[in-house]
Amino acid sequence: YSSSSPIRATLFPGDGIGPEISESVKEIFQAAEVPIEWEEHYVGTEIDPRTQSFLTWESLESVRRNKVGLKGPMATPIGKGHRSLNLTLRKELNLYANVRPCYSLPGYKTRYDNVDLITIRENTEGEYSGLEHQVVRGVVESLKIITRHASLRVAEYAFHYAKAHGRERVSAIHKANIMQKTDGLFLKCCREVAEKYPEIRYEEVVIDNCCMMLVKNPALFDVLVMPNLYGDIISDLCAGLIGGLGLTPSCNIGEGGIALAEAVHGSAPDIAGKNLANPTALLLSGVTMLRHLDLHDKADRIQNAILNTIAEGKYRTADLGGSSKTTEFTAAIIDHL
Amino acid sequence: YSSSSPIRATLFPGDGIGPEISESVKEIFQAAEVPIEWEEHYVGTEIDPRTQSFLTWESLESVRRNKVGLKGPMATPIGKGHRSLNLTLRKELNLYANVRPCYSLPGYKTRYDNVDLITIRENTEGEYSGLEHQVVRGVVESLKIITRHASLRVAEYAFHYAKAHGRERVSAIHKANIMQKTDGLFLKCCREVAEKYPEIRYEEVVIDNCCMMLVKNPALFDVLVMPNLYGDIISDLCAGLIGGLGLTPSCNIGEGGIALAEAVHGSAPDIAGKNLANPTALLLSGVTMLRHLDLHDKADRIQNAILNTIAEGKYRTADLGGSSKTTEFTAAIIDHL
Ligand SMILES: CC(C)[C@H](C(=O)O)[C@@H](O)C(=O)O
Ligand SMILES: CC(C)[C@H](C(=O)O)[C@@H](O)C(=O)O
Repeated sequence: YSSSSPIRATLFPGDGIGPEISESVKEIFQAAEVPIEWEEHYVGTEIDPRTQSFLTWESLESVRRNKVGLKGPMATPIGKGHRSLNLTLRKELNLYANVRPCYSLPGYKTRYDNVDLITIRENTEGEYSGLEHQVVRGVVESLKIITRHASLRVAEYAFHYAKAHGRERVSAIHKANIMQKTDGLFLKCCREVAEKYPEIRYEEVVIDNCCMMLVKNPALFDVLVMPNLYGDIISDLCAGLIGGLGLTPSCNIGEGGIALAEAVHGSAPDIAGKNLANPTALLLSGVTMLRHLDLHDKADRIQNAILNTIAEGKYRTADLGGSSKTTEFTAAIIDHL
Repeated sequence: YSSSSPIRATLFPGDGIGPEISESVKEIFQAAEVPIEWEEHYVGTEIDPRTQSFLTWESLESVRRNKVGLKGPMATPIGKGHRSLNLTLRKELNLYANVRPCYSLPGYKTRYDNVDLITIRENTEGEYSGLEHQVVRGVVESLKIITRHASLRVAEYAFHYAKAHGRERVSAIHKANIMQKTDGLFLKCCREVAEKYPEIRYEEVVIDNCCMMLVKNPALFDVLVMPNLYGDIISDLCAGLIGGLGLTPSCNIGEGGIALAEAVHGSAPDIAGKNLANPTALLLSGVTMLRHLDLHDKADRIQNAILNTIAEGKYRTADLGGSSKTTEFTAAIIDHL
C-alpha cells in the first residue's frame, strides 16, 4: 500500500441495523486514517438472473475486483425461487473457509474467562450441498458431500492460519465414528496437511465430545477446523461463551486471495434505524479484514480502542447492559483511538 | 407388580468400569428393596451372525422378553466386519427415542445453576443411516434419511413425555433453513403432533442458535426434540453444563414399550477394576428405568439418596473432586436411602 493510492474495498451495509453499524465502521476507520476507499453495494430489489438472488452480479464483481470486502447482516427475503444471499456469496465467490475468532472481551463478564478460540469452517459443501429429494412419499434424503479438494483446502488454510498467528494446536472436529466415509475423508485430508506442520500439534475430536468439553473448559482448544455444519454449530456455541454473535468477528476466505469479512448476527429489524445497535461484530470483522491486508498497526489501534471502550464500561449499547446509542459508542471508540 | 413376583430386567454390565458400577446399582437397588431380578448378559467374544456384532442374539432376546433393561458402557472392539454395539442395540431393538434428562446436581457447582433440560433424540435414522459411498475418487457422500414415520413417532413421544412430566414447552431443533426437505419434514411432523397438545407450548429453534442460547442461558429451554445427530450433539453439550456424561442418565424407548436405560459415558479402561469409577450416570439411568415401570416411590428414594450424598459432599469419587472409592460412595448412598 502506498499512501497515494488508497485500497478499494467493497462494503455491503446490508439490511436492518446494517447501515447504522456500517456508518460506525466508516467513521472509526476514517478517524484511524485507514487508507481504504469503500465501494458500497446494496442488496437489489429484483432477482438478478446471474446470481439467482437479490444480490446483483455487479456487487459480486466488485468483491472479485477489490478482493476485500466487509458485509453487514442481510435478511434473505422470504419467498421461493431465489437463493439465500449468504449462500449466494459463498458459492459465487468460492468462499471456502470461514474463520471465526472468539475471545473474551476484557471487562465484559460472562460465565467464561479467557476464551480464545478460532473456528475454521469449511464453507462450500458438506451438509450445505443443497442436494435433497423425496425418495418416496414420507421418505426424504439429503446428501452430505465431502471432497478431497475442499477438505485439503480448508485444512491447509487452518494450519497456515495457526502458524501465521502463533497458535499451537489444530483440532479437527468430526463424527467419523458414524460417518466413516465422509468425515473419514475429511480427517484423512487434515492428517495429510498436519504432517507438513510438525510444529503444530494436531488432534481429532468427535463433535459431541467437543461440545461437552467446550462448555466445561474452552481452554482445552485453540484452532478448530471442521466440515460446514459442525462449523456452523461450534462457532455459534463459542460465540455464546463470550456473549453472543453481536461480539464476534467473522471472515470468509475465497479462492484467489479474496477476503470477505462479515458480521454474522441478524439484521435485528426490531431496533433498525433507532440508533441502538451494537457495531462491535462488524467492527471486529473489519479488523480481521485489515489484518488480511497486513495493515496490522491500524488493526491493533482500532481493536484496542473497541476493547478498551467496552472494558471501561461507560459507553455500552443496550445488548451489553448499557444505555449508549450507537453513535455515542462510536464516538467513545474514536476517543480511545 | 405384585410383591410375590419380581420384575425381570436385563442387565448389560458392559466393559471397563461397567461391572463395578453395575455392582453399585445392584447393591443400592437391593438395599432399597426394588422388586427387580436381574438377568445379566455380557458382550460376546465372537461375532454373532444374527446381530453382526459381539452382542449375542440371546442378550437381545432377553430385552425383548423383559421389555426393560439397563446397560453399562460398551467399548466397541476395534476392527472391521462388525457393527458398533450401541448401534446394534438401537437397530435390533428399534430404540426410536433416546431421552436424556439433564439437571444440575445440588451442591455440585458448575458454571450453571438450575439446569433442567430434557433432550429427546430420534435414534434410528437421520445422519446415522449408515448409507455412504464414494461417488468418484476424492468425492464421497453420506445420506441423511428423514421419514415421516420416525419423525412422528419421536415427536409423539416428546409431547407425551412433556405432558406426563408436567413440562411446559417442547422445542424442535433443526436446520431447515438449509436442509429444507429433510429437516423440513421433521418440523412438519412436530407441528402436526403439537396441534394435538394445545397445553404444551411449541417452538422451533435452529441448531446453531440453540447451542448459543444453551450456553448463554439454559433456562430458555425445557424439552428439546430433534433428529439423531443434533440430539447426539445437544445432549452432550447439556451434559457439559452440569458436569459431564458421568452424571447424566439416558433411557432408550423402543417399539412395543421397551425401555433400555444406559450410561452413555465411556468404559474408562484406564481406571477399570480400581474401585475409582463414579456410578452416578448408571444409577440415575436405573432410576429412569424405575420410573418407566411406574415404581416412582423407589425411584424417588434412590434418586434422593444419590443427590443427597453428592450434595453433602463427604463422599465423592475422584471425577467430582473427591477421594472416595466406588464402594464407599455406594455405601454412603445406601446410608442415605
Ligand atoms: C443464515 C444461515 C444460512 C447461516 C449458515 O447456516 O451458515 C448462518 O447460520 C451462519 O452461520 O452464517
Ligand atoms: C458411541 C456413539 C456411536 C454414540 C452416538 O454417536 O450416538 C454416542 O456418542 C452416544 O451419544 O450414544
